[in-house]
Amino acid sequence: MTQISFLFVLEMLGTAAFAISGALAAARKGMDIFGFFVLALMPAVGGGTMRDVILDRHPVFWIDDVRYVAVALAAAVVVYFSFYRPGGRQRVLIWMDAMGLALFATLATRICLEFETGATVAVMLGVASAVTGGMIRDIICNEIPLILTREIYATAAFVSSVTFVALDYFGIDSRISLSLAVLAGFAVRGLSIVFDWTLPAAKPRS
Amino acid sequence: MTQISFLFVLEMLGTAAFAISGALAAARKGMDIFGFFVLALMPAVGGGTMRDVILDRHPVFWIDDVRYVAVALAAAVVVYFSFYRPGGRQRVLIWMDAMGLALFATLATRICLEFETGATVAVMLGVASAVTGGMIRDIICNEIPLILTREIYATAAFVSSVTFVALDYFGIDSRISLSLAVLAGFAVRGLSIVFDWTLPAAKPRS
Amino acid sequence: MTQISFLFVLEMLGTAAFAISGALAAARKGMDIFGFFVLALMPAVGGGTMRDVILDRHPVFWIDDVRYVAVALAAAVVVYFSFYRPGGRQRVLIWMDAMGLALFATLATRICLEFETGATVAVMLGVASAVTGGMIRDIICNEIPLILTREIYATAAFVSSVTFVALDYFGIDSRISLSLAVLAGFAVRGLSIVFDWTLPAAKPRS
Repeated sequence: MTQISFLFVLEMLGTAAFAISGALAAARKGMDIFGFFVLALMPAVGGGTMRDVILDRHPVFWIDDVRYVAVALAAAVVVYFSFYRPGGRQRVLIWMDAMGLALFATLATRICLEFETGATVAVMLGVASAVTGGMIRDIICNEIPLILTREIYATAAFVSSVTFVALDYFGIDSRISLSLAVLAGFAVRGLSIVFDWTLPAAKPRS
Repeated sequence: MTQISFLFVLEMLGTAAFAISGALAAARKGMDIFGFFVLALMPAVGGGTMRDVILDRHPVFWIDDVRYVAVALAAAVVVYFSFYRPGGRQRVLIWMDAMGLALFATLATRICLEFETGATVAVMLGVASAVTGGMIRDIICNEIPLILTREIYATAAFVSSVTFVALDYFGIDSRISLSLAVLAGFAVRGLSIVFDWTLPAAKPRS
Repeated sequence: MTQISFLFVLEMLGTAAFAISGALAAARKGMDIFGFFVLALMPAVGGGTMRDVILDRHPVFWIDDVRYVAVALAAAVVVYFSFYRPGGRQRVLIWMDAMGLALFATLATRICLEFETGATVAVMLGVASAVTGGMIRDIICNEIPLILTREIYATAAFVSSVTFVALDYFGIDSRISLSLAVLAGFAVRGLSIVFDWTLPAAKPRS
């Protein structure tokens, strides 16, 4: 019960973070409240929906538990009515996206392992679920997806996912392994935002 | 039987309307006939496919009934061979999209209620199914998705969806509730196109 | 067994070809190695995943057989460390995409027929599976999807798909029908690239 609650708190944090990032994107585009709802829901439940459909995990997580949708809509309403400095929006969007990224990479990897997909597929589908929500948001908004920025992005999701697989393999208590995996990915992404870190890119050689 | 027929007519209307909107987008991009087919099918069956996959409603609606695909392909052929004024295309696309939007929001909401998803999820998935087809069309074509225009868009889908949920709750005959829900959403979207209505957007405040 | 092996070889070729096209797109965007992985996997398994989910074919093909993901990741690593001339990249991407397109259109059509979807739906879903992977790659990268170029594209997938349906209908040995279908589609696409062929597009008439 306690463990389920802890998991649930992480899920709600990820949902809210990605919903806020979607609502901020809607704000930048000058959309109305229903546009906020759509743009908040897409990243908040899009990646997890893809994961559940691929794993044939039915019903999809938000169908029978209205709290996921409710949290996302509430986040959209809060952003809609909140005061903000125009310049600060993009910055907040990026940090909310970073939180959602680390949380969803970890949580999706956990669900894959529970479905006994094997570690390789768990990491791959965990990362894919985490990056898909944000990509949908950015593609709808006609923005360059964050994954294409020169900052470390997919790498952070990989760090969360691999950390969880490793700690889980060694039988670490799930609350600890979940927390460490989220923190590891968030730290990598956060440091890359703050210090403008990049991994070496393949460079043209002639 | 009569009711099924009425439903089927609405489904075919929505399929044709969205297929025409896709074919018109293909015409604008100067694509060949097979490009027309792909661009017509994506909005015509894309949103409903997502809905069925999420609801685990198998087989997906167009797999066992070839009429959906046939209507969409026929619509593409008609647009391909039809005469049109270059300037009129975008206008017709927007109106066909409006028709598909109201029809699919209503019909998808009805299917969700039949699957007993609860009203909140039915509205959310109904709206998502209705807006997804058009977004796929616009994203493939590298156009600004209509949902991002300042006109009322997602709102119209919400109006159709909520109207149907309300009338269905009060046990209104389904032909009447379907018709009223479609008309309500189409009216809201149509008036917003004609009079350039917008809902208040979240404005930057400093 | 031999037949399964032959099928498997075609599948691996298609997976590698599309993975290489995705990795080349990642190279053009200057992404790091994890970005290469994501961009290689999306076209390599994206279209087939959509096909399996729509057909309710579970588990999705790459979940229980890690070789698909492994081949795609290996292709990404090879591209990442390979030498290339900057100008040659786009050309190689287009040819790898052509190979993946013909292979996946044929293979997806075969799977649809095996699921007894009927010929119309098999062709439609075969073509859709083949073009979806490349579209995801191009949309993420903010490039004009190849399907929108004036060259013959969706047409080549249709040629592969229809050729396979026809040969299969006449009971031709599957290794022969698979090979001919792949070659036919690849030839059409290849010739259109080399000779800049286009089908007549719908032209504005006033």
